Amino acid sequence: MYAERIANLKSSAIRDILKHMSKPGMIAFAGGSPAVELFPVAEITTAFERVMTKYGAASLQYSITEGLVPLREKLVQRLQTKGIGTDNVIITQGSQQALDLIAKLFIDKDSLVFTENPSYLGALQAFQMFQARITAIPSDEQGIIVDELRKQLKAQRPKFLYVMPNFQNPTGISYPLERRKALVAAAQEHDLLIIEDDPYGELIFEGERMPSLFSLAGGKNVLYLSTFSKTVAPGFRIAYAAGDAEVLKKLIILKQGTDLQTNTFGQYLVNEYLESGHYQSRIDVIADTYRTRRDAMLSAMERQFPKTLSWNRPRGGMFLWVRLPEGWDAKEILLRCVENNVAFVPGQEFFPDRSGRNTLRMNFSSPSPENIEEGVRRMGEVLRKI
Amino acid sequence: MYAERIANLKSSAIRDILKHMSKPGMIAFAGGSPAVELFPVAEITTAFERVMTKYGAASLQYSITEGLVPLREKLVQRLQTKGIGTDNVIITQGSQQALDLIAKLFIDKDSLVFTENPSYLGALQAFQMFQARITAIPSDEQGIIVDELRKQLKAQRPKFLYVMPNFQNPTGISYPLERRKALVAAAQEHDLLIIEDDPYGELIFEGERMPSLFSLAGGKNVLYLSTFSKTVAPGFRIAYAAGDAEVLKKLIILKQGTDLQTNTFGQYLVNEYLESGHYQSRIDVIADTYRTRRDAMLSAMERQFPKTLSWNRPRGGMFLWVRLPEGWDAKEILLRCVENNVAFVPGQEFFPDRSGRNTLRMNFSSPSPENIEEGVRRMGEVLRKI
Repeated sequence: MYAERIANLKSSAIRDILKHMSKPGMIAFAGGSPAVELFPVAEITTAFERVMTKYGAASLQYSITEGLVPLREKLVQRLQTKGIGTDNVIITQGSQQALDLIAKLFIDKDSLVFTENPSYLGALQAFQMFQARITAIPSDEQGIIVDELRKQLKAQRPKFLYVMPNFQNPTGISYPLERRKALVAAAQEHDLLIIEDDPYGELIFEGERMPSLFSLAGGKNVLYLSTFSKTVAPGFRIAYAAGDAEVLKKLIILKQGTDLQTNTFGQYLVNEYLESGHYQSRIDVIADTYRTRRDAMLSAMERQFPKTLSWNRPRGGMFLWVRLPEGWDAKEILLRCVENNVAFVPGQEFFPDRSGRNTLRMNFSSPSPENIEEGVRRMGEVLRKI
Repeated sequence: MYAERIANLKSSAIRDILKHMSKPGMIAFAGGSPAVELFPVAEITTAFERVMTKYGAASLQYSITEGLVPLREKLVQRLQTKGIGTDNVIITQGSQQALDLIAKLFIDKDSLVFTENPSYLGALQAFQMFQARITAIPSDEQGIIVDELRKQLKAQRPKFLYVMPNFQNPTGISYPLERRKALVAAAQEHDLLIIEDDPYGELIFEGERMPSLFSLAGGKNVLYLSTFSKTVAPGFRIAYAAGDAEVLKKLIILKQGTDLQTNTFGQYLVNEYLESGHYQSRIDVIADTYRTRRDAMLSAMERQFPKTLSWNRPRGGMFLWVRLPEGWDAKEILLRCVENNVAFVPGQEFFPDRSGRNTLRMNFSSPSPENIEEGVRRMGEVLRKI
């Protein structure tokens, strides 16, 4: 009755865990939501009024599949890559849709895809839905290990490599400049398409902003994805993909058959919000807030967690990554933590090679510093008993 | 490089024709847009204010994949089918996304799908994207011919039958009650899943509202799709699918990997608009307006078109259907009409069996009565020269 792709269909661990979130008193480090109290409600209200005055009913009508022209013009500006125009940008219904369209465009049953190890669960889901085989390239604290990638590329040819070079979901790690350059060089040498997913790149706590792989490659053979979900608000589902115009043309036709277009109204609102000039100052507020929360989490972990655990200190984004001692199973610990009213995401599902049973992801963007303190204390209680 | 499904990828005729629409002075009977001047701008503004007061930033946050609970509760009420609850309804990003998700759930390469002849182009595209084989069941002025369907069902077993029983796109025809009952009986007998697409069912000009196949079948083995794109505004992309809870569970997981969720903000706005109580009176205004435009079109055609052409008189919706004399090619006539600043959609692409070269679709919802008069006059000029 169902298609073959459905045989292994299962809800994600994240989704199943989110069900626990509504339990009263639960402190959630498991989600991936931006802080709701930082959404620019007043500015969105102003943007709404302006959209209605300037465009009226047209902002509620059908519009072209590739997305609102003035919004794409602004994105071209932001991409800072020579030779890029509005034909190189499409608006998508969140970055998840870009991943779905990319899978549709490139992946046949048993097509090979390379990813980081670990990698973003939503991307793995999108690729697996089209029955891709996924090979995870060994990765370290600076991202994909380029020599390992070269080795793999000699053995087999993937449809593309999927990476998240800025404050990765799930680990929070970022690629230094040298690693970026080495990766782009290896990709160009092997004519390898890179899917660069960059939802968190603007949420920087310290250090400089790194150039995108897309700009380093001069826009060639890289599809760059980003979104306003973390910098404005997720509820509009306004994201974008940038890349080669011929590839984008195909994505546009696929999008036409997938959902016709991204919601017109959200595009107008985000476009108007960008015109208001509040965008960058709001991002500064978001980054300041998340830095404080990251620091609160790191400080609490230092005090509460056993010394046998280790973790990183991301320079931006929304997540940090914890390594438990070998042999521990984060899923079992999660069950005990949920009983103690605190939750996180076990790391194993992020690993295409199913390693990482002793890892877990912590979100610090959503909970308050007080809840971070209390939640880490609850986790520490559980962890110290093991 | 690309997936196999891309080999036959092409932009739709409708999309290509829409490019002509921006030509100054063009009168378009080719689109499928609702009348922009009837969108409830003032009521949406009120709904916006209420959403912001009642929910604030939460209306801009991520939300659950299946859609806003109060909106789904309202849809359960509207479906008027016993035993249906919120687990039987999901919100989709326009009905086009429901078609995409249904294709994802059921269709493997070479899977068989039954449709009407002609059928909705967006559905054909969605199914073809997943490499379905499509068999068009012979259809008459009352829809699918049930005896022909039975004959086909004896020969081969499709994944589902896709139909649009109310004011079909492209023909404008509707199924009378007896045909509906016969179709549901045949489907139940053969355990055939029906996809019932109903975007236009509320836009009734005369006669009674017919029960849905979904309600006639007691919600069993029918997936029912509808949308607010034609009754509120398309720019929100808020539509829904109703059906068996087990099937919907699978669609929800697929939607999670496809775009996570439908835009939260549009769901809140539509939900609030429905609560305002203006919905039905606005539909009455829309139906009155479209009836006037249909009548203007019929009257102009009667005066302007050669007597060798024939056409129908739809009891609702947004389209009517014209049949040219045998041997005429609507595509060639379109080219001449575009030179004369008027456009329609040639019918052939709507026919999975590639018949219907001498048919065309006319939209009467979007142009004003004055433009309808003038546009039909321009078409008549071209047609009388042939």
